[in-house]
Amino acid sequence: MKIFEEVESQVRSYCRGWPTVFVKAKDATLHDEDGKSYIDFFAGAGTLNYGHNHPVLKQALIEYLTEDNIVHGLDMYTAAKGRFLDRFREIVLRPRGLDYKVQFPGPSGNNAVEAALKLARKITGRETVISFTNGFHGMTLGALAVTGNSMKRGGAGVPLNHAATMPYDGYLDGQTPDFLWLRSLLEDSGSGLDKPAAVIVETVQGEGGINVASKTWLRGLADLCTEHDILLIVDDIQMGCGRTGPFFSFESAGITPDIVTISKSLSGYGLPFALTLFKKDLDVWEPGEHNGTFRGFNPALVTAATALEHFWTDTKLAEDTLRKGELVDTRLRGIAAEHTDVGSDVRGSGMVQALAFDDPKIAAATRAEAFSRGLLVEGAGPEDEVVKLLPPLTTTDAQLHEGLDVLADSVRVAIKELS
Amino acid sequence: MKIFEEVESQVRSYCRGWPTVFVKAKDATLHDEDGKSYIDFFAGAGTLNYGHNHPVLKQALIEYLTEDNIVHGLDMYTAAKGRFLDRFREIVLRPRGLDYKVQFPGPSGNNAVEAALKLARKITGRETVISFTNGFHGMTLGALAVTGNSMKRGGAGVPLNHAATMPYDGYLDGQTPDFLWLRSLLEDSGSGLDKPAAVIVETVQGEGGINVASKTWLRGLADLCTEHDILLIVDDIQMGCGRTGPFFSFESAGITPDIVTISKSLSGYGLPFALTLFKKDLDVWEPGEHNGTFRGFNPALVTAATALEHFWTDTKLAEDTLRKGELVDTRLRGIAAEHTDVGSDVRGSGMVQALAFDDPKIAAATRAEAFSRGLLVEGAGPEDEVVKLLPPLTTTDAQLHEGLDVLADSVRVAIKELS
Amino acid sequence: MKIFEEVESQVRSYCRGWPTVFVKAKDATLHDEDGKSYIDFFAGAGTLNYGHNHPVLKQALIEYLTEDNIVHGLDMYTAAKGRFLDRFREIVLRPRGLDYKVQFPGPSGNNAVEAALKLARKITGRETVISFTNGFHGMTLGALAVTGNSMKRGGAGVPLNHAATMPYDGYLDGQTPDFLWLRSLLEDSGSGLDKPAAVIVETVQGEGGINVASKTWLRGLADLCTEHDILLIVDDIQMGCGRTGPFFSFESAGITPDIVTISKSLSGYGLPFALTLFKKDLDVWEPGEHNGTFRGFNPALVTAATALEHFWTDTKLAEDTLRKGELVDTRLRGIAAEHTDVGSDVRGSGMVQALAFDDPKIAAATRAEAFSRGLLVEGAGPEDEVVKLLPPLTTTDAQLHEGLDVLADSVRVAIKELS
Amino acid sequence: MKIFEEVESQVRSYCRGWPTVFVKAKDATLHDEDGKSYIDFFAGAGTLNYGHNHPVLKQALIEYLTEDNIVHGLDMYTAAKGRFLDRFREIVLRPRGLDYKVQFPGPSGNNAVEAALKLARKITGRETVISFTNGFHGMTLGALAVTGNSMKRGGAGVPLNHAATMPYDGYLDGQTPDFLWLRSLLEDSGSGLDKPAAVIVETVQGEGGINVASKTWLRGLADLCTEHDILLIVDDIQMGCGRTGPFFSFESAGITPDIVTISKSLSGYGLPFALTLFKKDLDVWEPGEHNGTFRGFNPALVTAATALEHFWTDTKLAEDTLRKGELVDTRLRGIAAEHTDVGSDVRGSGMVQALAFDDPKIAAATRAEAFSRGLLVEGAGPEDEVVKLLPPLTTTDAQLHEGLDVLADSVRVAIKELS
Repeated sequence: MKIFEEVESQVRSYCRGWPTVFVKAKDATLHDEDGKSYIDFFAGAGTLNYGHNHPVLKQALIEYLTEDNIVHGLDMYTAAKGRFLDRFREIVLRPRGLDYKVQFPGPSGNNAVEAALKLARKITGRETVISFTNGFHGMTLGALAVTGNSMKRGGAGVPLNHAATMPYDGYLDGQTPDFLWLRSLLEDSGSGLDKPAAVIVETVQGEGGINVASKTWLRGLADLCTEHDILLIVDDIQMGCGRTGPFFSFESAGITPDIVTISKSLSGYGLPFALTLFKKDLDVWEPGEHNGTFRGFNPALVTAATALEHFWTDTKLAEDTLRKGELVDTRLRGIAAEHTDVGSDVRGSGMVQALAFDDPKIAAATRAEAFSRGLLVEGAGPEDEVVKLLPPLTTTDAQLHEGLDVLADSVRVAIKELS
Repeated sequence: MKIFEEVESQVRSYCRGWPTVFVKAKDATLHDEDGKSYIDFFAGAGTLNYGHNHPVLKQALIEYLTEDNIVHGLDMYTAAKGRFLDRFREIVLRPRGLDYKVQFPGPSGNNAVEAALKLARKITGRETVISFTNGFHGMTLGALAVTGNSMKRGGAGVPLNHAATMPYDGYLDGQTPDFLWLRSLLEDSGSGLDKPAAVIVETVQGEGGINVASKTWLRGLADLCTEHDILLIVDDIQMGCGRTGPFFSFESAGITPDIVTISKSLSGYGLPFALTLFKKDLDVWEPGEHNGTFRGFNPALVTAATALEHFWTDTKLAEDTLRKGELVDTRLRGIAAEHTDVGSDVRGSGMVQALAFDDPKIAAATRAEAFSRGLLVEGAGPEDEVVKLLPPLTTTDAQLHEGLDVLADSVRVAIKELS
Repeated sequence: MKIFEEVESQVRSYCRGWPTVFVKAKDATLHDEDGKSYIDFFAGAGTLNYGHNHPVLKQALIEYLTEDNIVHGLDMYTAAKGRFLDRFREIVLRPRGLDYKVQFPGPSGNNAVEAALKLARKITGRETVISFTNGFHGMTLGALAVTGNSMKRGGAGVPLNHAATMPYDGYLDGQTPDFLWLRSLLEDSGSGLDKPAAVIVETVQGEGGINVASKTWLRGLADLCTEHDILLIVDDIQMGCGRTGPFFSFESAGITPDIVTISKSLSGYGLPFALTLFKKDLDVWEPGEHNGTFRGFNPALVTAATALEHFWTDTKLAEDTLRKGELVDTRLRGIAAEHTDVGSDVRGSGMVQALAFDDPKIAAATRAEAFSRGLLVEGAGPEDEVVKLLPPLTTTDAQLHEGLDVLADSVRVAIKELS
Repeated sequence: MKIFEEVESQVRSYCRGWPTVFVKAKDATLHDEDGKSYIDFFAGAGTLNYGHNHPVLKQALIEYLTEDNIVHGLDMYTAAKGRFLDRFREIVLRPRGLDYKVQFPGPSGNNAVEAALKLARKITGRETVISFTNGFHGMTLGALAVTGNSMKRGGAGVPLNHAATMPYDGYLDGQTPDFLWLRSLLEDSGSGLDKPAAVIVETVQGEGGINVASKTWLRGLADLCTEHDILLIVDDIQMGCGRTGPFFSFESAGITPDIVTISKSLSGYGLPFALTLFKKDLDVWEPGEHNGTFRGFNPALVTAATALEHFWTDTKLAEDTLRKGELVDTRLRGIAAEHTDVGSDVRGSGMVQALAFDDPKIAAATRAEAFSRGLLVEGAGPEDEVVKLLPPLTTTDAQLHEGLDVLADSVRVAIKELS
């Protein structure tokens, strides 16, 4: 690991909690250079919903590369892109009644967010975007301005403007009516809030601590946007592609966002890929008004199209995700019940589940212990007080139980150590 | 092509000039679905310096994928990342006496630029960044603020601040001394320019019209930065990885930037990959202060390391690039000399060469004619008045001549059509 | 009035509601050029707390001018300035235990606010300033950014940044605990609110609709600021100089702001004059770091010092103001009780009192009718739904009753007309 | 002077160079409390063009006050305001063919500038305003953003945006053609300068060091603005009201700005007063969109109207100003010629004249010596390297010579001391 310490910047982060060198991976298992294996309940922060190196995607990818098809084509038309667009329309959009245009904004989620924000501002001629407490949307300057985390905001080096933060579902005391504050601001011409271009929201806040917005709240938000002629952007980068069950995480709330960002598990194989989707009448872009070199990384289009065909032509994956989500939830509640002396909270939706501790030290110690026992679980929340579980959706029940056993033991050790 | 028109956003651009569906590619040749072949003097806007699907890189990539090595690992330590860091240090940094730290800022050039700007502001505690007329640094909000193009700036939807534009080398009348204006602003406490955090510059402006900064000018700029304690950022995203001869385009000027951004041809195979490099004592990042999902796309690390080993352990490629650059330059001057009645300019450095026409219509007609004759050449410059040549560095002399013959014919047709 | 319509900009406002040419004024009475007299319950929007042309101040002013004393001296030391500073310290600051430094920021309230904001940001090194819904602090760019009114904000022509709006006392539903939202934002490192430099608040919002903050709320706000190391700015421009009883409107809440702005009635005679006050240890200004031509308009210093001596060396005025305030309140409640079929609200503090109607049309018709009957009353509130009463503090009880009789009649006529 | 040191903020400035307490003033002479008299070549930084306490204005003012006319009337119609508008139109606007609307933006110059900037942005829908090196326009946030001085800019505490600084006439090397840089930026869609709303310029930079723009340069600037549909704002706050000869300083260049700001000597008696003037078709304000308490300080309207009648109904004052300007210029050149070993520069226009020293220490020592000998002269320029002369226009030739004799002696002493 010397080479990393000597050459890589201090900014590196995940490797600090998991100080080993990984070499191989398959499904929900990782292997390091010492031959030790790890159950992966992290899944590339939601990038590997179908597990590591899924054989069907792998075959499609290697075939594509072997035959000297187009790898890099900027935004030229290619056969792989045509196939992806067709598959995305037929498998994802049409069955859900979504008449979206598709933009390739660049390879990463922040590109999708930046494009969404620019488009919303261009359409409305307004600047302000509403974001929510503990929202996370990326590190580029536009995306960072709608991200809550103060340490990351501080990294900007310039004031982050044109955004206003509002309370996420459940943020206040549980007594204050939803949207009391936001609605008051919008309806009062003396409120000091300039009329917003858009609202950007996650249905479940992943980095923010696995905070789950209720369907009622999401519908209320969508209604408020409609009422006030504000565009609704759902950032589905971490929760999309089936993480909460359906392909888009907002489906179950019965809302149709004006703009959607999606990335992470979209290629299905960890290949950089992101999309910005929007209603057809919002497609006011000039040709080339937003561009970028890696907009058309064709191997990602290939695996993405294959993943759609393999996983999304029936409802099996979505149903299985909900079932497994309940399994994880039940086990986490069991762990919490074991330690009632310690304040904790179990929350989640589908296969994003979390065990939040009142005391962030317990969460940290649990994650460290889990790592030493061969289980990868990430932190989340403003104080890293959350143990966050994002197993591949394809993890077997047996491996889920195995990982949760390790987690249960790790919590026990952590609490004992700290008491 | 119907699927693209129906589903893809209006923002698409390159495909508009080259309306066909590409399927295969090898070296400097592309093939479309109708079996027509194209000489590629575009090379993914500088992403394919080693040509399409180079066999050595292809083999390394397929082997890596076949063996179920880590594809996506965020910023965890992996064997592929260790190898890349080692190769980058031994082959690139050490021989050039560069003691840089390496940051993986995300998969695309704009991520590298955003990280560079944030770091420069964090280090200095200042906000303003100096950029240059017709500079291009990307479409995310931070990068866009230092980009010159008014159409792209207009897409931001918010005012772009914390930046000041200065004349690039040769921008003024050729009489005004270099840096007269910038130096005056810096030395005068009443100038209205707040002390800058950094200067961001391209050694050759690719998108801006193949404007080549002289070594003298670059050295003058570096000296001015040192004198005024301003950080020098060289954006080497398009001109690095050997495009102008040496690995870094700034080497020949004998300057050492404080911060360097690099991307495009870094993976050598069109895989999304970008780096931000900076002097060791500038590594003031907090862990995780800048992050992102696709920071560690391991297949790109594999092809990048292999490309370094294959192309950069001796000086052959660099020398060949200079030689071929002269070949292209000579041929372009020949074409220009054929049409002295039409105002034109030949300029470039190494294997980035351009034929600029006073009349943008000639440039447009030339590019269209070239496409119909099976040659891809891009536009550049504020009015798209430039025919820009970025052939793969590995293009054979024969194919260079073949492409330049097509270009010569295309210019003839274009001028004739328009007269 | 033709000259005004021909030459003066459309931006003129008060004259539109009171379309006559005024010529003379004394105490609480104005006279127009047709010899008609008006009871003035407007008092220059709170600038004439001691009435028009008070004889004691008039004598001091004319004497000063007659003797060719310094009229304009920028910020040179003058005898008049020395006397003012001495009187202000001895009569205002010392008896209240306030150890403030005094800055002369320019002649108008917005100068005082701009200086306060700059100082708060300079001291803390932070940018964000918290303001409140329906707050009003002035029209210059810094002050406008913390002002709520959307029409006035829209006049800026640039986005107004570095500010965040919070709910004023009583803004929400009366159920939500005070500061629940602000406290959550401050205590949560993921909230998206960058740590503020300061809070700026009016104890009673004058332009915003005569919204009265309770003592409890003000104390809670002061405590929250202390707890989080945020500077508390009280903008006492309209409510200071005795409008609510005590010299400073915040005295009764028992709080000591870090910074105070004061203007309007400070000179006591309608002469432009403003001050920014701050705790001694906050005086981190460089000499000349904030300046301006009319910082030392000496005649205003003369009348201000005389006003302090005449009105503020005992508690008579303050007590009388509270007594008269109750008189006005009782009469307004009587008027409201007469029209229970129409939604209305009586509110105020000391001699700022208001009758707010649910239907802004009633408020507008009342003001128009009052004008035609010889009474000047202003509008306020985001929809101008408020009839705002700011009579001179020196108005006799008889004239108060006379004006209120006219108001009562005007309300009757207005309601009748509109039903 | 103890009271000032104890109670007044550190921000005080002029008093530091002139540490005495002034009490009386008449014409061009000030008296301090010790009975010492001073020749005033400072004139309230250009506020007292007609000298201190001019008897004609004094009489009008005292009469007005004595008769209990309206002192403070916000923006209500008053007889005094009507008279001022009429006089301003008949004496100033009509004879010069200026069809301006008149806005009362507040009592100080920065209010006039803020209103001008807001209006220009509102009209054009653009944000950027071009200002010039060493320009000075005020301390409120909008005005400060177009001001050059780095110390004063630093006081903002937030980044100052939406402005771009350009070289003032003579700023560069005297070889570079005028507007080469600005024109290039405007004509090049890739320059990085967003299309400006307006240019704001002083014809002579007062605070910036008495830099005089040539008529050719001003005309060139006006033409460039017309050509590019950019509004031209002339800030005539310090140079207007006859300082350079004609009423408006831009008259001699034969240009007609779109917007003009004027203040300082407008009331003629040191009373706070400012105007924003603009072409009739630019009057797009909504009623009340820009407001403020001290917009209608009627005594200032009275003295202003009287000053127009007294000084501006013939060309005598303007001619006399030019003649006296030459007198001062000749004397300053004489002083400079006495000290050829020391680098100096004489410059100015009308009755704003300056002696600039290469070595700021000589300028400082000269001013200090002059004060001790009973002459007030101000500093200017980014390094305070300028001795700035702004005598009242009404100063007698004898007193001009007397003051210049003192100045000549002071320079001699200063140079001797420092050598």
